[in-house]
Formats: sequence, C-alpha cells, structure tokens
Amino acid sequence: MRLALAAAANAAAGGEVPVGAALVRGGQVIAVAANAPRRLHDPTAHAEMLAIREAARVLGRDRLEDCDLWVTLEPCAMCAGAIALARIARLYWGAGDPKGGAVEHGPRFFTQPTCHHRPELYSGIGEGEAGELLKGFFQARR
Amino acid sequence: MRLALAAAANAAAGGEVPVGAALVRGGQVIAVAANAPRRLHDPTAHAEMLAIREAARVLGRDRLEDCDLWVTLEPCAMCAGAIALARIARLYWGAGDPKGGAVEHGPRFFTQPTCHHRPELYSGIGEGEAGELLKGFFQARR
Repeated sequence: MRLALAAAANAAAGGEVPVGAALVRGGQVIAVAANAPRRLHDPTAHAEMLAIREAARVLGRDRLEDCDLWVTLEPCAMCAGAIALARIARLYWGAGDPKGGAVEHGPRFFTQPTCHHRPELYSGIGEGEAGELLKGFFQARR
Repeated sequence: MRLALAAAANAAAGGEVPVGAALVRGGQVIAVAANAPRRLHDPTAHAEMLAIREAARVLGRDRLEDCDLWVTLEPCAMCAGAIALARIARLYWGAGDPKGGAVEHGPRFFTQPTCHHRPELYSGIGEGEAGELLKGFFQARR
C-alpha cells in the first residue's frame, strides 16, 4: 500500500485525482500505477486498470488468479468489473468512496449474480493517508 | 452496427468470444474493435473498452460526450462504467446478456446513484445476428 500511496501522490502532482494501485504476486510487486485519464487521454486509465493491464502484459496472460491488488480508493464499477474479469485473488483498498465506489456502495458489484468472481475483500488499509491525499487535492482545486 | 457485427465475427474466427463495437462521432466512424482479451493478454480488452480507448486517443481527450457507441452485446459492469466515465452520448446494443450484462441486468449500472453520466440507451439493434454469432461460438466449443 505504500507504493500505491506514493503513486497516488504522484498523480496529484500531475493534476490527476490522486489514486494509486499496486499489483502483487507471491510477495513480488508486478505493477504500480497512478490514475492518469487526462495525461493519457484515456477515460479508462484508472490506477487499477493500468496496474491490471501492465501485470497481464508482464505475465503474458489475461487471468491473474494468483495476484492481489492494492488500491488507495474503493474501486468504481469499471474497475470492480475488471478485477472480477482478471480473477484477482485479494483486493485491499484504502478510503471508501460513497460517491463512486462499487464495492461497498452503489452496485456493490461483487454481490451481484452477474459477477463471476469475487476476490477476498479488505477495506480501510491506509485509509487515513489515502483520504487526506484526495481531500487535499480537491480543496486545492476549489 | 454492421461494422460492430463484422468485428464480432472476426473475434470468433480468432477464438475470442464474438463481440464487436464501433464508436461514431457525427456520422463518422472513429474506432471499430473486437473483443480480444486472450490475444492481447489483457482482461480489460472488451470490444467497448478498445473502441473507447482508440477513439479517445484519436480525438486526444478523455471525454467523448459527442460520441455514440454501438456494441453487439449488452455491456458488462466494467464497460458500462467506462461508458459513463467517457460521457458517451448514446449507447446502442444488440443482444441482451442476462449472465453478465450490467445495463438491464445485475447492477443496472446507469440507474445507480454512483453513476454520474447516463447515455441514451437503445437495445435490440441487430439482436438476432449478434445472438446467433454468440450461440454458434459457444456451441462449436462444447
């Protein structure tokens, strides 16, 4: 989560909403990514998506059933869907996201009958720091 | 939708679940894509995602509010989330997907309070052909 938080801080410095993610396999970090839709001109470029895509590329396969994802913010519907499609084993996240989250809020995607893989879920990891980064970012932009 | 259906047929020929998508802006086709998670080693490589990413790249921005997306199958949660994030104006799809769809099934994402953009929705366009492609693909693999 330290790597994910550092990536989030970097995103903020670049004018992107500060969210970071790290993908880990057997104790080894495979990918670290920061939220970058504006920089990359890509609405799908959330930190989780970039980390999953990079790890799948590195490992040369489209299923990551032996991998865990760490992310500083509760994933949205797009990212929760991608996490299920990638068969991620464990999902750890920091701050909850009542406005856009899809795990404990809104669609609660992993509880849906149309969700075909549910990772183990661990919330609130590094929540304070993750939340402060987001709060600072949005306050500075007002 | 003809272009999306042709892309879906191509996907099937390559061993991928046959789904295709086309992204259109003011009557001009900006991107056409086929489902390709296996070929690309990318669990996020659904036809809709690839079409959205390509269009955003071509147009050099992360919001596609003047664009319409045509896809042969009801989008899943990941793709529905991406469609909202990209601010797609109109969504046209072919076959419904009771097992994995997220528009008229499961999370019904566009009706959630955590969804911040709802495109105009048009279902059943080219439904017969889209469904036949999928049926034929899964029958051949049994």
